[in-house]
Amino acid sequence: MHEQQRQRAGELLHEKGIDAALFASPASVTWLTGFAPPIQTGPHPFAAAPPLVWWDGERFTLIVVDGLAGAAASFAAEPDGDVLAYRGYTIEAPIDSATHLSAALRNLWEGRSVTRTFRRIGLESWAAPAALRDALSDGPFAAVQWIPIDGWLAPLRMVKTEEEVQKLRENFRLTDIGHVAARNAVRAGAREIDVWLAARQAVEAAAGCRVPMGNDCVVGYRAENIGGWPLDHALRPGDSIIVDLSTIRYGYWSDSCATYVAGAPTPRQQAIHEVVGEALAFGASLLRPGAVAGEIDRQLRRFIADAGYPVYPHHSGHGVGVTGHEAPRIVPYSQEILAPGMVILLEPGIYFPGETGVRLEDAFLITEEGAIQLTTHEKRL
Amino acid sequence: MHEQQRQRAGELLHEKGIDAALFASPASVTWLTGFAPPIQTGPHPFAAAPPLVWWDGERFTLIVVDGLAGAAASFAAEPDGDVLAYRGYTIEAPIDSATHLSAALRNLWEGRSVTRTFRRIGLESWAAPAALRDALSDGPFAAVQWIPIDGWLAPLRMVKTEEEVQKLRENFRLTDIGHVAARNAVRAGAREIDVWLAARQAVEAAAGCRVPMGNDCVVGYRAENIGGWPLDHALRPGDSIIVDLSTIRYGYWSDSCATYVAGAPTPRQQAIHEVVGEALAFGASLLRPGAVAGEIDRQLRRFIADAGYPVYPHHSGHGVGVTGHEAPRIVPYSQEILAPGMVILLEPGIYFPGETGVRLEDAFLITEEGAIQLTTHEKRL
Repeated sequence: MHEQQRQRAGELLHEKGIDAALFASPASVTWLTGFAPPIQTGPHPFAAAPPLVWWDGERFTLIVVDGLAGAAASFAAEPDGDVLAYRGYTIEAPIDSATHLSAALRNLWEGRSVTRTFRRIGLESWAAPAALRDALSDGPFAAVQWIPIDGWLAPLRMVKTEEEVQKLRENFRLTDIGHVAARNAVRAGAREIDVWLAARQAVEAAAGCRVPMGNDCVVGYRAENIGGWPLDHALRPGDSIIVDLSTIRYGYWSDSCATYVAGAPTPRQQAIHEVVGEALAFGASLLRPGAVAGEIDRQLRRFIADAGYPVYPHHSGHGVGVTGHEAPRIVPYSQEILAPGMVILLEPGIYFPGETGVRLEDAFLITEEGAIQLTTHEKRL
Repeated sequence: MHEQQRQRAGELLHEKGIDAALFASPASVTWLTGFAPPIQTGPHPFAAAPPLVWWDGERFTLIVVDGLAGAAASFAAEPDGDVLAYRGYTIEAPIDSATHLSAALRNLWEGRSVTRTFRRIGLESWAAPAALRDALSDGPFAAVQWIPIDGWLAPLRMVKTEEEVQKLRENFRLTDIGHVAARNAVRAGAREIDVWLAARQAVEAAAGCRVPMGNDCVVGYRAENIGGWPLDHALRPGDSIIVDLSTIRYGYWSDSCATYVAGAPTPRQQAIHEVVGEALAFGASLLRPGAVAGEIDRQLRRFIADAGYPVYPHHSGHGVGVTGHEAPRIVPYSQEILAPGMVILLEPGIYFPGETGVRLEDAFLITEEGAIQLTTHEKRL
């Protein structure tokens, strides 16, 4: 799994004169290894740090607390991959995972430096704990030059491999399932949280396991009706609700949005729903290799303005992968060029805060010929 | 909110000769401020770092990305509290929250150092990013001595304030609700994930919002039948299932466990359920101020062994608060002394891996007189 990603990362690091590197951001770890630890209750309770990946110029070592060793084990079968687990939970002594992680890293490093010299070490320094670098600062490490490599992998992540597209497709399948359930739950008297729970129930029952989920489930009469997590606001007859769903299965995010109405929509809801639907179709027609992200953004905004409606304050779209929002961003300043293998969300909207709002969002895989739509959820009000 | 916590933290830091401090662990941030950011889809996508708390020797500043400013706002009403939000999401330029956070921290610091001198600065160095300290290392900061303060607040967190007990009680109320729904969902043909979803549905519907939840939902025939997240293993007639639920509302964890059976329990299930229930009651009878945690652990293990069963490989119990497992741990080596205001879980179990297992868990508030049970979920098989 993810051999192509590791190869591209290794080439970049060699090119930049980096001898070894320590990755600590969840996005990098998943992208390099395919490993996706559970996230829904926060950081692992007995880990000293998030899962790490150590690259010694050649091999990649996934470093996890022992409680995650089972979930990480398959990476050890990769020809260029190893797994190192350090001690976390124990009942025999106070939990001291920081000491165990530090020792494991030093051993790993010293073992390899018999045959290699590490002078310039890359570090994801906004994700790695300060103490981790301190633990690698004396003795044989004193002469090391630490190079911040935060964000270096992000451009490499834009074009997806076939394996990644498969993981994304599975997530879009799950959000499609969630939307059917959400739509069926929308009725006068239902609360945002009830609509949300219907979607979540359908997604996790279909997946057969827990699945982290975002994003928004908000009724039109909320002042912040563009987005937000579901609360106990109840739908009244004629209220609209924006349901924007992401799932995170295999460490990859989907995204998708529809807007539903409890009972009969108002003329304004119908009108803006039609315009947003047309905007989305128009945006989709612009997706092809060579298209400039900022230009798609400009044209989508103009489409809404030309129809006489206020222009949405958010992006027109974004890439998706091991994070929910990534390059290429479909935003005003972006000069990024679309290329085959990118997976893009488009999500125009029209909002009247405190009254109603409509947003529709689909996902597209850029191909040699144009784009293939990956989401199939129904957009009817 | 949480004034007593801040006062106790300030006293400790003064005592240790710390001039100022930067807290970065989620547990410390919630405990000091009451602020509990959403966690269920991982770190905030546009933040440079987790929420931070800066203590300047007197006041506490909660530092968050602007997307969390609304949720954090109430802390600014505290007499000793401020909120500082730095820019995250924008469509006008590449997202550069790291630069904005670094600048915000320098400004905050330099503003205060007109009247104060910061020489010894405490840092939660296993939670703070390496780059954050780098951003505060030159110019006026060059002479600073950074003191690791990881874990310093943990002993202070053991005894809960009344406000914390209220938050914990609300969480135990939610897990009680979850257990009723889980028990009702247990039947032949139901999968672990179905039982789990019943509990989750009931908890979030009652809370009126999303609630992060742990811990275990595992059928007896799993090899790892002590714990694990729910999968699509289906219950057959006579299968047992361990349902161990935590909720995290207001940043505080509950915990609770029961064991259910699809249909009629076997004689072995009945026998071990009875012994574990007696062990739990026996453990509860030992809870009082002055009791030594390790001694409770020893007596509980002996109770199981004397009944002729294999002794569980995990802790006998643990404290709970802004983390799911905290001091005092009820484990063999612990010399910690119970005191009024502590909230303790006890959770003896008997396991036959791959066949069946029973664990029962209740929560107790230590009082001057002994202990009050906080969980009320039914333990019947």
